[in-house]
Amino acid sequence: MLINCVAYQQGRKLADIEVKDIGKWVHKPECFVWVALRDPTDDELSQMQREFDLHELAIEDARKGNQRPKIEEFGSTVFVAMQLLEFEHGEVQVGEVDIFVGTNFVLSVRNRSKQHFLGVRERCESEPELLAHGSGFVFYALMDAVVDRYFPLLDAMETELEEIEAQIFERGAARWNVERLYGLKRRATVLRHAVAPLLEVAGKLHGGRVPAVCMQTQEYFRDVHDHLARINTAIDAIRDTIGTAIQVNLSMVTIEESETTKRLAAWAAIFAVSTALAGIWGMNFEKMPELKWAYGYPMALGIIAAAAGFLFWRFRKAGWV
Amino acid sequence: MLINCVAYQQGRKLADIEVKDIGKWVHKPECFVWVALRDPTDDELSQMQREFDLHELAIEDARKGNQRPKIEEFGSTVFVAMQLLEFEHGEVQVGEVDIFVGTNFVLSVRNRSKQHFLGVRERCESEPELLAHGSGFVFYALMDAVVDRYFPLLDAMETELEEIEAQIFERGAARWNVERLYGLKRRATVLRHAVAPLLEVAGKLHGGRVPAVCMQTQEYFRDVHDHLARINTAIDAIRDTIGTAIQVNLSMVTIEESETTKRLAAWAAIFAVSTALAGIWGMNFEKMPELKWAYGYPMALGIIAAAAGFLFWRFRKAGWV
Amino acid sequence: MLINCVAYQQGRKLADIEVKDIGKWVHKPECFVWVALRDPTDDELSQMQREFDLHELAIEDARKGNQRPKIEEFGSTVFVAMQLLEFEHGEVQVGEVDIFVGTNFVLSVRNRSKQHFLGVRERCESEPELLAHGSGFVFYALMDAVVDRYFPLLDAMETELEEIEAQIFERGAARWNVERLYGLKRRATVLRHAVAPLLEVAGKLHGGRVPAVCMQTQEYFRDVHDHLARINTAIDAIRDTIGTAIQVNLSMVTIEESETTKRLAAWAAIFAVSTALAGIWGMNFEKMPELKWAYGYPMALGIIAAAAGFLFWRFRKAGWV
Amino acid sequence: MLINCVAYQQGRKLADIEVKDIGKWVHKPECFVWVALRDPTDDELSQMQREFDLHELAIEDARKGNQRPKIEEFGSTVFVAMQLLEFEHGEVQVGEVDIFVGTNFVLSVRNRSKQHFLGVRERCESEPELLAHGSGFVFYALMDAVVDRYFPLLDAMETELEEIEAQIFERGAARWNVERLYGLKRRATVLRHAVAPLLEVAGKLHGGRVPAVCMQTQEYFRDVHDHLARINTAIDAIRDTIGTAIQVNLSMVTIEESETTKRLAAWAAIFAVSTALAGIWGMNFEKMPELKWAYGYPMALGIIAAAAGFLFWRFRKAGWV
Amino acid sequence: MLINCVAYQQGRKLADIEVKDIGKWVHKPECFVWVALRDPTDDELSQMQREFDLHELAIEDARKGNQRPKIEEFGSTVFVAMQLLEFEHGEVQVGEVDIFVGTNFVLSVRNRSKQHFLGVRERCESEPELLAHGSGFVFYALMDAVVDRYFPLLDAMETELEEIEAQIFERGAARWNVERLYGLKRRATVLRHAVAPLLEVAGKLHGGRVPAVCMQTQEYFRDVHDHLARINTAIDAIRDTIGTAIQVNLSMVTIEESETTKRLAAWAAIFAVSTALAGIWGMNFEKMPELKWAYGYPMALGIIAAAAGFLFWRFRKAGWV
Repeated sequence: MLINCVAYQQGRKLADIEVKDIGKWVHKPECFVWVALRDPTDDELSQMQREFDLHELAIEDARKGNQRPKIEEFGSTVFVAMQLLEFEHGEVQVGEVDIFVGTNFVLSVRNRSKQHFLGVRERCESEPELLAHGSGFVFYALMDAVVDRYFPLLDAMETELEEIEAQIFERGAARWNVERLYGLKRRATVLRHAVAPLLEVAGKLHGGRVPAVCMQTQEYFRDVHDHLARINTAIDAIRDTIGTAIQVNLSMVTIEESETTKRLAAWAAIFAVSTALAGIWGMNFEKMPELKWAYGYPMALGIIAAAAGFLFWRFRKAGWV
Repeated sequence: MLINCVAYQQGRKLADIEVKDIGKWVHKPECFVWVALRDPTDDELSQMQREFDLHELAIEDARKGNQRPKIEEFGSTVFVAMQLLEFEHGEVQVGEVDIFVGTNFVLSVRNRSKQHFLGVRERCESEPELLAHGSGFVFYALMDAVVDRYFPLLDAMETELEEIEAQIFERGAARWNVERLYGLKRRATVLRHAVAPLLEVAGKLHGGRVPAVCMQTQEYFRDVHDHLARINTAIDAIRDTIGTAIQVNLSMVTIEESETTKRLAAWAAIFAVSTALAGIWGMNFEKMPELKWAYGYPMALGIIAAAAGFLFWRFRKAGWV
Repeated sequence: MLINCVAYQQGRKLADIEVKDIGKWVHKPECFVWVALRDPTDDELSQMQREFDLHELAIEDARKGNQRPKIEEFGSTVFVAMQLLEFEHGEVQVGEVDIFVGTNFVLSVRNRSKQHFLGVRERCESEPELLAHGSGFVFYALMDAVVDRYFPLLDAMETELEEIEAQIFERGAARWNVERLYGLKRRATVLRHAVAPLLEVAGKLHGGRVPAVCMQTQEYFRDVHDHLARINTAIDAIRDTIGTAIQVNLSMVTIEESETTKRLAAWAAIFAVSTALAGIWGMNFEKMPELKWAYGYPMALGIIAAAAGFLFWRFRKAGWV
Repeated sequence: MLINCVAYQQGRKLADIEVKDIGKWVHKPECFVWVALRDPTDDELSQMQREFDLHELAIEDARKGNQRPKIEEFGSTVFVAMQLLEFEHGEVQVGEVDIFVGTNFVLSVRNRSKQHFLGVRERCESEPELLAHGSGFVFYALMDAVVDRYFPLLDAMETELEEIEAQIFERGAARWNVERLYGLKRRATVLRHAVAPLLEVAGKLHGGRVPAVCMQTQEYFRDVHDHLARINTAIDAIRDTIGTAIQVNLSMVTIEESETTKRLAAWAAIFAVSTALAGIWGMNFEKMPELKWAYGYPMALGIIAAAAGFLFWRFRKAGWV
Repeated sequence: MLINCVAYQQGRKLADIEVKDIGKWVHKPECFVWVALRDPTDDELSQMQREFDLHELAIEDARKGNQRPKIEEFGSTVFVAMQLLEFEHGEVQVGEVDIFVGTNFVLSVRNRSKQHFLGVRERCESEPELLAHGSGFVFYALMDAVVDRYFPLLDAMETELEEIEAQIFERGAARWNVERLYGLKRRATVLRHAVAPLLEVAGKLHGGRVPAVCMQTQEYFRDVHDHLARINTAIDAIRDTIGTAIQVNLSMVTIEESETTKRLAAWAAIFAVSTALAGIWGMNFEKMPELKWAYGYPMALGIIAAAAGFLFWRFRKAGWV
């Protein structure tokens, strides 16, 4: 589905144009065309391929929806694939945006995602002095927008991790903790697979040999690279902390079980000693003098209570009950 | 066993030829020969060595069946070994395909595998404009076919992992989970050993200095490289998740055991208190006034029931029973 | 909030100057201006941007408070972000100091931290022969001060780790140990995220190609780099030790539980045998000759005591009780 | 102990020569001398040092028996140390072979190992066209022989791992498994320490700048390198699998313990309820009407049986007994 | 404290000289001065700084006692810091030796360690042909001596690890094992922190660009480098083995606990069934025909014994008791 198809010159919007007129505009000097597609049909992609002379393999990737962020140069055209992530109800939706950048055009293809980039276009149009950098700046603006959308996911994970940590040492929360930690680990893995290869991509857009279209906007791409590095470091910290938290959680379960075992041992002993004593006086021997004593019964109860009490005192001192 | 031996010129099939005529065809300009062998005898391999002037060490590898994917250049000839994997009934079959590529020939040798490459030949012959790139393109087409066959294995593993994850937090599934996770880990290791060195191989076929026969098809090999990188990343994610899942599974077993211990402790206490009380009234002292009371028995039953009930209430409140 | 704004020449303080006069001083030869801001407003930052001609992206970072240490060069200006850490009551406060260094100026911007750098200025002013190196030396002095403040944090962590280790093999300390180890791990992670990227930064300030302003003070930056490497190694050791300590702690809990289980088993057996024997003589058969014996009861008590005693002796020998 | 000392020319054996005549032969063109020593005395080594003009440090290494494979160049002489491993009755014997290679000589020194290299000499002499490559080919042949002897060790480990895996999920095998896994891990570590540095060594003998004597036999050393890479990958897989297997084994123990705990809980409950009920009817109250009933006893037995049966049915349903 | 101050020429000792005369000797051709200090005062260090023209930062490091091995070049002077380790009664003492090497001098400063280097001086003086290499050889001799002193520590650790391994599968040794393993891990960490950075240092003294004073003695430094690599590999193996051993130890504890639990379960069942049966015949029903039988009591004892015996037989078969 075509969303936008606009021609720009020296940072200013010239006109919404027809797809069939792209050819005319693309060849005007200091002019570039910015096209946005969403879940395009094969026909739309083929049309774009013809208009912008795109490489078959890149179009193939955009059609099939590649799952891994990457950058590829085909002659003077740069092809970048990035992931759009949505975390909903513990489920992760992985969409994708593919960007083709040439000297005179930017084509963005969005697949399987509700996240649109209209705001990017508006912001670009409102800063003509920056948009005058040409297609390279639009490329930066789109990439920056994609990366910025990873931050809320990261924040949500950090918040959840803090929630879990807040009750990791509480009794009885072990099952809940381990379930949430596992879910969090999975989401961190998804985010990392979106970010880590993109970090590599961004590293190729500043510093050393960079594609021609990104030449003038290198410092902006360094900024994006820095954001990605920050996210990447944060994810690594989250993953590392989750690992430790799962271990600690297991420790806490074992410690709790150990405490329960001790308490069980203590009470079992208290009752067992009572039962054993009562059993002895319940034997049917004919000559058991204490059975005849007037105070035999209270004495027996006393002994049982004393034995039980002594054990209780011992165990309390040991911190078992 | 010889499967095919065909000469091509400018992307079109010229003729099925005899092995002994290979020499004639190989030296014609713009012409190349594509031979496919399956589980070849030593004689067949020696014949091929003579016809294509292959290096002794490479033939040795093809004969013995090397277990590790690799690429080697011998003069202008490129030798590539790749693994063919089949997962059947939890068992893994590792076969191998060895490819020799020269300017004027492609020789593929398949060992211990039922996977054939007839489809690759058909597809190549149906696209003469691509096949016109010569032996390098055939090399790409074979490699691409091998790599494409790893994807279903990967998908099967991801599906199985999801099945396991779906019941990792269910009670009583621990033994089954850990067995399946272990099996999955093994299969992931096998696939990784097929893919990781191949990723290295593919990296040498585009970008920097590449063998002469792959010069024109670099962008295709970059595509293969990208596919392999995707598989590799996915395997790493699976392995990482398996590690966490085994840990989590152990946690769940420990948590369950801890809960069982608590329940055991609770019921043991309830019965123990009943037994102890009954034991006391079963003692044979002569002077136990309550034994004479008319309502002694109901009172005793009441006290026992009350004690048991009180404990039950306490434990229920604590979530133990 | 402006803290200081001073002009220096040949290592000596010339005058406290007005912000609006910065332009005049900056262009004098052999003269440089050193400005310190704290939690600056947007206006203050914009003013500085104008006075020193700073790049928009760097100012943006200083405004938003970047969370990751880094170094960036914009033309001849160097921008460095570093973290200021405070550990209070187990909580970690992460502040930041951003430094802009040009040939003729140093601008330090401190955010969200109570740590001031007045001491650095005093020390610099008291060593005019070093300060004569210019803005590069001030840059070094600030960086050195930041790094020096990491050492007490490291020492505190090492001390705490030693405290934990001192009781890791004591009974009953497991819960306390694991809580402290987890807290320590978190703090080590925070410190590592402050130090590791800074190590990278410092590596770019000596040895190979270094920014022009750091040319003369390379050996000083090598010294800072060495300090950072020392901290980094120490943190890695702490983290590694924490990992082992958590494992060991879990082992100790399991060992203790195992010992408790054995003791429980032993006492349970001793009481159970007594109860079973008493139960037998408590049966109501008419013909139980020993019940009639004069010494039946003492004999029964003797047998019970002997059985219990025998078990006790066995268990004591086995080290269970 | 001198084993062999032979002069070769153009791939053919000329004569067994005396050690004192080495000097004469070494300087003839197209001629090289191949000496083999076993557990040499200091005198023998000193003699060799004089004859071949070897460096003091290399002789020192050969004398002391260095424990780590390495390659070192001293002028045009190459010194290589490799480990000879024997696994006997679970014990590992680490021997060593040191090889000195110059343009006109090969000296192999074997220490603390029963593995001889007579077969290598025979094979070389039977292929004069290869031996004509000179001392570099002998060097390759020896290295190849050493590496080939690692394969059976690897196979033995893989077989043992499979045996362990075959019973890792069986009950009661945990102790045996963990002992064997630990032993296997140790042997894998020994083999890895023999192979990993040798892999590095082999990497220096083909491809980039290689010692002059290995120039003509580069492709052979690449083959050795490939074998070593295969072993190394296999060892890594074994180590990784052992790690997982130890974890899984621990899981299985915990699962089994958990099942035992449940069964214990179940039977304890069944007996406890019987004992408690019997205890109640064993009380000595005067007014317990059911004691007088003709069918009181059968009823009591019935109730006890019913209670026990009910519990048994519940536990069976839950899979506990 | 000054220990020695000697001038050498062409490998021979000329004279013990006064510190104040150093200046005279240092400037003679083919002559060098070797000074050894121990726990020097600030004054002594300042004097040395003046005599040899040392850099402030290096002197600062020697004064404060840097904790991390490193190498630094200041002009033509090389500064190396190394650690001297002593393990006493499980405690680790970390001392330090700092070496300054120039073309005409060697200054060694030893701090907080009882290990002296008199033997090194003697050995050097006894080999004038080697000492004739100048200050670079003294530098090598000192470094070699430091490294050689790490080997006994390593051996002690390996011996201790073997002792632990010898009883890792014995019952009841778990607590002792885990304590020793933890202590060993800590010592391995200390040794690794002494060795790993030194390995880096040694790597800079041979092969590529090396400091001028080490030019002639490169092969000796390669030898030191090789020793350090051997130690480093051995430490890594120890650390890896400790990790596995801790895991295995935990497994053994869990297995033992599991066996204890089973035995407990078995005996508990045997006694519980006896008690339950005895309880039934202890009930007070009037009509319990078996109570009247002449052989009721022996029959009851028989049934109890049979039930207990049957269970015992079952459990013995299952390997529980």
